[in-house]
Amino acid sequence: MPKYLEDFREGEIWQSGSVVLGEQEMIAYARANDPQPFHVDPAVARAGPFGGLIASGWQIAALSMRLFLEAGGHGDTPIVGIGIDELRWRQVVRPGDALRTTREIVEVRRSASKPDRGTIRTRVTVLNQRDEVVMTYYALGQVRARAIAPERTRS
Amino acid sequence: MPKYLEDFREGEIWQSGSVVLGEQEMIAYARANDPQPFHVDPAVARAGPFGGLIASGWQIAALSMRLFLEAGGHGDTPIVGIGIDELRWRQVVRPGDALRTTREIVEVRRSASKPDRGTIRTRVTVLNQRDEVVMTYYALGQVRARAIAPERTRS
Repeated sequence: MPKYLEDFREGEIWQSGSVVLGEQEMIAYARANDPQPFHVDPAVARAGPFGGLIASGWQIAALSMRLFLEAGGHGDTPIVGIGIDELRWRQVVRPGDALRTTREIVEVRRSASKPDRGTIRTRVTVLNQRDEVVMTYYALGQVRARAIAPERTRS
Repeated sequence: MPKYLEDFREGEIWQSGSVVLGEQEMIAYARANDPQPFHVDPAVARAGPFGGLIASGWQIAALSMRLFLEAGGHGDTPIVGIGIDELRWRQVVRPGDALRTTREIVEVRRSASKPDRGTIRTRVTVLNQRDEVVMTYYALGQVRARAIAPERTRS
């Protein structure tokens, strides 16, 4: 059943399971979407600044979405993605790393100009198997509010 | 030949070619990375808030990277992605839309604490075939600076 703005609570947290990102998966994603040498060519990557292949940052971002959905996501609730703030890649991801994500609602706000909707701001964190923070960002989404009862006239 | 911090100029602009994003490509990306109904199921999507299938926002972001690389990117210069700020999805992308991107350097800054490196901030814009702005963001990357000549002692 779809949820509405009023059903979301600041502090609500999702914790995903963990997935291993393999070398072939990293290369396949990067070839299609981000074909930089240190993402697609193990030999070139070994001689480069990271000393080996690393995952495209965009793949880690997309993976954080998939892991959140697999952890239940917002269920049937259609949330319109508005944007992403303060995304930071904090650790490189190498073949064989196991990633998981947590997502916490940090703000629920009704629109002042359009009170039939509102926004939810969530803090997303991706961790690796050593509990190092790999990536963080804030995601901003729009969700419908319940119909508002008309104000009664005091008289 | 790799470039260094000193070789980048504020105002430098890349303009990419244009690519059409087809329905199958949208569904394939979303199935693997962002399997929400309005990204993967045309029938469900038609009944949903967008009246039809739309591309995953993460696919548009990844595409902006690929288009930039195809437009030359930073060549041989290894730039370490630090993060993304103020990403906003401004228009939905539907099957058959043709997307292109522009990327402009808006800030070049040497690190105060580590002067052998610095950061480049770029403004990325994705447009569709109607010249509507589909997505914007700022990308922050780190690049090496040239060796600094040792300061001479005045005596």
